[in-house]
Amino acid sequence: MGQIITFGEVLMRISPRGNKKFIQSNLVEFYFGGTELNVGVSISNFGGNVRHISAVSNDFIGDTAISYLNKFGVDTSKIVRSQRPLGVYFLEVGAVMRASTISYNRSHSSFSEIKPTMVDWSQALSDGDWMHWTGITPALTQGAYETLKEGLLLAREKGMQVSADPTYRSGLWKYGNDPKETLTELLHLSTIFIGGINEINEVLGTEFSYSNEDFIEASKLLMETFPSIEKVFDKIRTSLNSSWHKIRARMWNGKAFKETEDLDITHVIDRIGTGDAFAAGLIYGLQHFDDCKAMEFASAACALKHTYQGDVNYANVNEVEAILEGGVTGRLKR
Amino acid sequence: MGQIITFGEVLMRISPRGNKKFIQSNLVEFYFGGTELNVGVSISNFGGNVRHISAVSNDFIGDTAISYLNKFGVDTSKIVRSQRPLGVYFLEVGAVMRASTISYNRSHSSFSEIKPTMVDWSQALSDGDWMHWTGITPALTQGAYETLKEGLLLAREKGMQVSADPTYRSGLWKYGNDPKETLTELLHLSTIFIGGINEINEVLGTEFSYSNEDFIEASKLLMETFPSIEKVFDKIRTSLNSSWHKIRARMWNGKAFKETEDLDITHVIDRIGTGDAFAAGLIYGLQHFDDCKAMEFASAACALKHTYQGDVNYANVNEVEAILEGGVTGRLKR
Amino acid sequence: MGQIITFGEVLMRISPRGNKKFIQSNLVEFYFGGTELNVGVSISNFGGNVRHISAVSNDFIGDTAISYLNKFGVDTSKIVRSQRPLGVYFLEVGAVMRASTISYNRSHSSFSEIKPTMVDWSQALSDGDWMHWTGITPALTQGAYETLKEGLLLAREKGMQVSADPTYRSGLWKYGNDPKETLTELLHLSTIFIGGINEINEVLGTEFSYSNEDFIEASKLLMETFPSIEKVFDKIRTSLNSSWHKIRARMWNGKAFKETEDLDITHVIDRIGTGDAFAAGLIYGLQHFDDCKAMEFASAACALKHTYQGDVNYANVNEVEAILEGGVTGRLKR
Amino acid sequence: MGQIITFGEVLMRISPRGNKKFIQSNLVEFYFGGTELNVGVSISNFGGNVRHISAVSNDFIGDTAISYLNKFGVDTSKIVRSQRPLGVYFLEVGAVMRASTISYNRSHSSFSEIKPTMVDWSQALSDGDWMHWTGITPALTQGAYETLKEGLLLAREKGMQVSADPTYRSGLWKYGNDPKETLTELLHLSTIFIGGINEINEVLGTEFSYSNEDFIEASKLLMETFPSIEKVFDKIRTSLNSSWHKIRARMWNGKAFKETEDLDITHVIDRIGTGDAFAAGLIYGLQHFDDCKAMEFASAACALKHTYQGDVNYANVNEVEAILEGGVTGRLKR
Amino acid sequence: MGQIITFGEVLMRISPRGNKKFIQSNLVEFYFGGTELNVGVSISNFGGNVRHISAVSNDFIGDTAISYLNKFGVDTSKIVRSQRPLGVYFLEVGAVMRASTISYNRSHSSFSEIKPTMVDWSQALSDGDWMHWTGITPALTQGAYETLKEGLLLAREKGMQVSADPTYRSGLWKYGNDPKETLTELLHLSTIFIGGINEINEVLGTEFSYSNEDFIEASKLLMETFPSIEKVFDKIRTSLNSSWHKIRARMWNGKAFKETEDLDITHVIDRIGTGDAFAAGLIYGLQHFDDCKAMEFASAACALKHTYQGDVNYANVNEVEAILEGGVTGRLKR
Amino acid sequence: MGQIITFGEVLMRISPRGNKKFIQSNLVEFYFGGTELNVGVSISNFGGNVRHISAVSNDFIGDTAISYLNKFGVDTSKIVRSQRPLGVYFLEVGAVMRASTISYNRSHSSFSEIKPTMVDWSQALSDGDWMHWTGITPALTQGAYETLKEGLLLAREKGMQVSADPTYRSGLWKYGNDPKETLTELLHLSTIFIGGINEINEVLGTEFSYSNEDFIEASKLLMETFPSIEKVFDKIRTSLNSSWHKIRARMWNGKAFKETEDLDITHVIDRIGTGDAFAAGLIYGLQHFDDCKAMEFASAACALKHTYQGDVNYANVNEVEAILEGGVTGRLKR
Repeated sequence: MGQIITFGEVLMRISPRGNKKFIQSNLVEFYFGGTELNVGVSISNFGGNVRHISAVSNDFIGDTAISYLNKFGVDTSKIVRSQRPLGVYFLEVGAVMRASTISYNRSHSSFSEIKPTMVDWSQALSDGDWMHWTGITPALTQGAYETLKEGLLLAREKGMQVSADPTYRSGLWKYGNDPKETLTELLHLSTIFIGGINEINEVLGTEFSYSNEDFIEASKLLMETFPSIEKVFDKIRTSLNSSWHKIRARMWNGKAFKETEDLDITHVIDRIGTGDAFAAGLIYGLQHFDDCKAMEFASAACALKHTYQGDVNYANVNEVEAILEGGVTGRLKR
Repeated sequence: MGQIITFGEVLMRISPRGNKKFIQSNLVEFYFGGTELNVGVSISNFGGNVRHISAVSNDFIGDTAISYLNKFGVDTSKIVRSQRPLGVYFLEVGAVMRASTISYNRSHSSFSEIKPTMVDWSQALSDGDWMHWTGITPALTQGAYETLKEGLLLAREKGMQVSADPTYRSGLWKYGNDPKETLTELLHLSTIFIGGINEINEVLGTEFSYSNEDFIEASKLLMETFPSIEKVFDKIRTSLNSSWHKIRARMWNGKAFKETEDLDITHVIDRIGTGDAFAAGLIYGLQHFDDCKAMEFASAACALKHTYQGDVNYANVNEVEAILEGGVTGRLKR
Repeated sequence: MGQIITFGEVLMRISPRGNKKFIQSNLVEFYFGGTELNVGVSISNFGGNVRHISAVSNDFIGDTAISYLNKFGVDTSKIVRSQRPLGVYFLEVGAVMRASTISYNRSHSSFSEIKPTMVDWSQALSDGDWMHWTGITPALTQGAYETLKEGLLLAREKGMQVSADPTYRSGLWKYGNDPKETLTELLHLSTIFIGGINEINEVLGTEFSYSNEDFIEASKLLMETFPSIEKVFDKIRTSLNSSWHKIRARMWNGKAFKETEDLDITHVIDRIGTGDAFAAGLIYGLQHFDDCKAMEFASAACALKHTYQGDVNYANVNEVEAILEGGVTGRLKR
Repeated sequence: MGQIITFGEVLMRISPRGNKKFIQSNLVEFYFGGTELNVGVSISNFGGNVRHISAVSNDFIGDTAISYLNKFGVDTSKIVRSQRPLGVYFLEVGAVMRASTISYNRSHSSFSEIKPTMVDWSQALSDGDWMHWTGITPALTQGAYETLKEGLLLAREKGMQVSADPTYRSGLWKYGNDPKETLTELLHLSTIFIGGINEINEVLGTEFSYSNEDFIEASKLLMETFPSIEKVFDKIRTSLNSSWHKIRARMWNGKAFKETEDLDITHVIDRIGTGDAFAAGLIYGLQHFDDCKAMEFASAACALKHTYQGDVNYANVNEVEAILEGGVTGRLKR
Repeated sequence: MGQIITFGEVLMRISPRGNKKFIQSNLVEFYFGGTELNVGVSISNFGGNVRHISAVSNDFIGDTAISYLNKFGVDTSKIVRSQRPLGVYFLEVGAVMRASTISYNRSHSSFSEIKPTMVDWSQALSDGDWMHWTGITPALTQGAYETLKEGLLLAREKGMQVSADPTYRSGLWKYGNDPKETLTELLHLSTIFIGGINEINEVLGTEFSYSNEDFIEASKLLMETFPSIEKVFDKIRTSLNSSWHKIRARMWNGKAFKETEDLDITHVIDRIGTGDAFAAGLIYGLQHFDDCKAMEFASAACALKHTYQGDVNYANVNEVEAILEGGVTGRLKR
Repeated sequence: MGQIITFGEVLMRISPRGNKKFIQSNLVEFYFGGTELNVGVSISNFGGNVRHISAVSNDFIGDTAISYLNKFGVDTSKIVRSQRPLGVYFLEVGAVMRASTISYNRSHSSFSEIKPTMVDWSQALSDGDWMHWTGITPALTQGAYETLKEGLLLAREKGMQVSADPTYRSGLWKYGNDPKETLTELLHLSTIFIGGINEINEVLGTEFSYSNEDFIEASKLLMETFPSIEKVFDKIRTSLNSSWHKIRARMWNGKAFKETEDLDITHVIDRIGTGDAFAAGLIYGLQHFDDCKAMEFASAACALKHTYQGDVNYANVNEVEAILEGGVTGRLKR
């Protein structure tokens, strides 16, 4: 099976241990993350063949970021080094009714200042079967948007699958482009849509509700508007509080609607990157299973990710499949 | 708005990390706390103007205690330095059916050996609008009791509000004074009563039950007995086990009875100081809101405190208000 | 009251902190454990007089293991030193639907290579009242099996009580002996059976179900087959997921069936060694209480163990008894 | 004695513990630093009355930075909050022949984007006696340079002392201004020069050697060129390797040349901020002692700083004076 | 060989890691120590049979202290439990010219409030061959002094050796007794004197210098004054700074003067308890070697202790002997 | 340039932090190491193209070991997975006159039980230019010896360079083979000899002294005896104590004798793997420089390794070259 290409920012995540605030302890942990990287690492942990494309700083922090990706067997040979520092985000992990809080330092980072000339997409996509993008990248800067678009154009030209997770985050999109217009352009270069009612409404300018009926209607309208899109997958989170979530998924693949049962995550360890774990599970699943099992695999992967600290999902295929087979009781494995 | 004065012991709290016992690890964390200090820091985190009065050791531990208060912007300029060591308490944090356990080393501490001559109350209360005391201070020593009384007398003379949290703890009160008699004397110098049926029964010698009806009757009787007291606020904790509590509040302000809904704290991080967070929320609330919202603010502050390690509440006003507006799902803030 | 003798492997347990995987952090914690050692330490924490018999490495790791047992007051004077390394096990602690995982490095350990000539059982059992064994020991090697059998023969000769926890673990038993045959031989040297339907079915070759009725029938048949066995105790775990368990117990003592209520462990800290905590509670209980209270004590001890990190139960008798008296709300002890 | 004003960037410093590299451990520590802040905190630890002026991020990292300064009693009331993130620097601490390495992420930080309109200098300097600046600030951006210049103009107008540490760092000065020209302008607003031959040669365009004779000549020429400058102080470091340094100082105060003996720092803990500790010792010293003792005090303060982790000097006046009295044997203080 | 009895306070030592101050980190480590306990543990690590007599708190801190002694195989069966808290000391470890600093919280501790009636000396000394005391104990309180004296009287009556380390610390001796008079009384009950010129001058009221000649004269005069004293051993420390010490020893045993070479401790890890390691090495040495080798053993033990964190010496006999045989190059042992 | 192949055991190294013993703290760190792996990682850090061949456990520990090698860009694609556990070694790091101590648990590890059939050498050496082996591998087991020999035979057949570091460690060689005979056989398959007088005397049965003259004679005799050997390189360590070493090197390349100056390592951080850093520097050096510079590069690499915790050398080529250019003062790099 060919390579899966992820393209996006590598962020250094820094956070106090446990549920502490920065004001409580000067001992903190770092991980690397970034929504597309998280997808890539997770697929690599499933055994997929993944290459991540990005720009990282040309210093020991950039070295450490690359070694972090190497650790998971992700191909880092096409990552560009830049004179700009790596983006950083600071995280304070909440609990119960206290929300987790993030503060970003990414606006002039090595990735934010990427330019199309810095990536040789024909090399980057040489063995590519699949490319994954999210709405974070075009929301950062003109350069990030243009670089992505070049990659997507080539990917479609080569007949690759393109999965889109158009996550709309209003705190971004500050460089001038119109979100709706830009995402529309990029969705026309995509084949799999990973997102829910909010994203569809944002892109179509509609006001669908969260009901399954509306989800089906919205998906149909989306697929009419974007003929390249073949399937729509949606992950639904129910939060009792910061520490207790439930996850389920639903899909419309042009022919059928399916949905999964809720998975009950009674003790959330880390919710960052759980949406990315869903996307990773889906991509791996669509390459190996039918649509419905792919969705169930993605949903279980997403639920499992809540039990790992850091941005990435460490679960392997057996661990995800065990949940599909009903193994949610966490029986000790010797 | 004028200053809020808190008066009480600064204790160094030492505990193993997580749910460990001292026998399990020689790596431990320290914080500073003490019931009145906790109230002061919490109000300062809400933006209040707080001065804490105490006596701390004249060594690097005392220096560290003062720097800890400075960190939160509490005015420490009137804290007295003493040749006696700072009080210490050791904490082993329980879980589920295992209770947390505390061992004190405070009986000859710098604060326990405070004397009225050591505090210049006219300076200490110079810009004071509000003074807060608890039943821990008069329970320690004759000196602590007398010093407190002098402060309260002057506070009332200056027309300041005085909030009383007469927490009765039977392990204290060893120096000879009668608890009921002493608390009675000090409650006559107070305007806001923070406490429940247990405290009222202790002070009045009554046997009211926990019902709302009895709470109203008890409050009325309390306010008859202590005409200076204008309002009574009670916080009710329901413990499923060490790790799962529910919190609600009720009040009688001489005119109306009000109570809040239970806030469900499914994963308790640290319950020390949660009563103090309630008192702090109440004092701040009464200065800024009507009685009912003050109680709801206090109840939400108390619930939030359960999610912070250490004795003090780190929440700011926005974070508490978010809960009042129904935001208990802990949605990630970017 | 005479000494309780435990015989079994001392394992070094190494695990990342919290719910991390080894790939996530190179900072890890170690404890010592091993099913029979866990029973011994727990009884010692109840105030029992315990001697542990084992073979440990003749290096600083063996020294540390012995000092670990000394810490709890367990008699280590009869532990043998060996040129072979101590057995090690690596643990990754799961959460929610993620299972905890263990990897062993014990197959040529100091204990696995024990031989009957290495233990002087007449000295080891000199003041012995009770001996405890589990099915792990005879499952390791011929030498471990033979050494155990010698001890049991002498223990029965001396009229000591012998408790058997015949835990059947299919990953072991690789050296050639037949599990059923071997366990049968050793159960004929035992007086108290600690185990459930699975273990009874394994030993008798039956197919009893988990119902109370079948449990009684199975126990009766067991006691007919093994006339030395006087009582059967069973601990039942209901796992919602890795982080939330319920524990109850049932017994047949030849005369009566009794069972306890479920104890709800809503936030599991560490489930390793909880079965051993049950066995320890039972042994201590049978020495001090009637059968029914012994079972309730064991069940409460088992539940409490879930709140302590590491293999051993740190609870003392008062802490267990508090649960028997309904104290599961974890009220703070000052 | 009036206030000492420091103006400069607050940087978050992040580094692995001990001598590790980021690739070796994801557990790191943070401190706050920045050359002018280090001077301010150190003077505050000597008992001086210090106000720090800066711009920090308007998020929990900025809150933590301010609380860090509060901890030491530095007045933070005039610090500006900005929408830009706080500057960060990453540090890997070397040993022996391995150099320590720093990587900066500061180029669009909250302080780098400061503008003169953001600081109300008349308020900032209201009680000011002394203002301290370094060559880092004008090297960052046009805005930082202009804001500094406005402050210096007012300081001189008010007759305040102005100490200048014109550290020339070639990796900075990227925004267009000429270093020599800019520093010349600012030195005309200064009264105390803290720097050595390198700095003097840089500013004057001369080629003096490191000899004492040349130092005297260079100082004389400097004071001719900048008539406002009254005294010149130079700190000389001799590095055997990363872990072993020697420190001495020399001065020309227009009348006399003096130099100190070498202080031998056989086990360097942290050399960051040691130059700032020298400047702080000098400023405090010039306010309290004669020039020669001020230099010796500064030199001892600088040496002591090498024994504290982090950017700032924790020593108090007694601890520095003990060294002046020959107390370098580190006798245990009980 | 019979038991060695040590009698003295058990202190909990709390200190930040590395060379940090309490103000720098709220993560600290604890150990247990106390000068006589340190001697006991060290002898136990040499294989000696040691019993420690003390009074510790009747809480989980006292439990942890006892388990700490058990860990080293010290007999704790005669330690008394008290309602008073355990003494605590806080330590900030210096470096180079920065002195380590200690702050005590021991003045009303469980040991300080010991009374003669609390110790059953006939049981405590039942198998005793040797008793060791230091000048710290009689300096604390009348009760500590009297309890010690009772023990020494019985020890001498039983013909035991009694080693005295009369360390004079001026910060103690606050309860009224005269140090010189009290130490004189106790030295008349001692047979081995461990101390130098300072201690001899203090006890005799003389003014001997540090020269070897004066040491011999002083020792002779001491042995005339206290006929029970048979031998005098002195440890001499040369401190280059907090991080670099040299250690040597000298002795007068009534017949001969001997001294050792300096041992060069180029990188001090922890100097607390090094004098106690000398005393322990001496006691063990005098039981197993001639006087001169005992002194050399003690000196090497003392030097080695500087390489272990905490109060006690972890070295075993082989490790000390390796130094006597010239093995100071620290060759890796596999 | 073609690939460098290293073949040898992957060991998990576990050690307490700092200079602690296992008995002092249950918080420990792990790294992976092994003499040949250390060489491979170090060359990879210099930018070399390295493949490591080994057998590791088929569990999460083996996964972690592989991810550790991936982190440094070492090719792990030919590493074999085994049902046996990974070898472990425990390390207590000494200081000053206290030696570091190692305890191994490797005798039945996944690598010890390797067999020739498990490695496909033609694939493993496919792009190989250089193969490196040490005397540890043939000292473990018959299987390890035979597997190595097969690889060396093929390597020589392909005309690859073969470097031999025949480290003789008497604690190994327990499976029956004669060390001298076995090493002789393997040295006939080698071209570069890395070792000193001890190794030459061991292999030749001679008694050369450590003098340079004898080194030259010994090297000549070695090269006569083993005609395939072209060059001999020797690293000389002078240990003042565990914390202070000096390193220099000498060589005989058949034509000339050269030696380097001592490099003074005044504060040793970690001496494990420093010989491997020498070998790695040499291999990289011989591929890129003349013999003399290769030796100097190796010597500097070896010295630098003493400043990194763990088994492997993190230095890159620039950092090593900086020392060759005299940069041993550890000047801060910004």
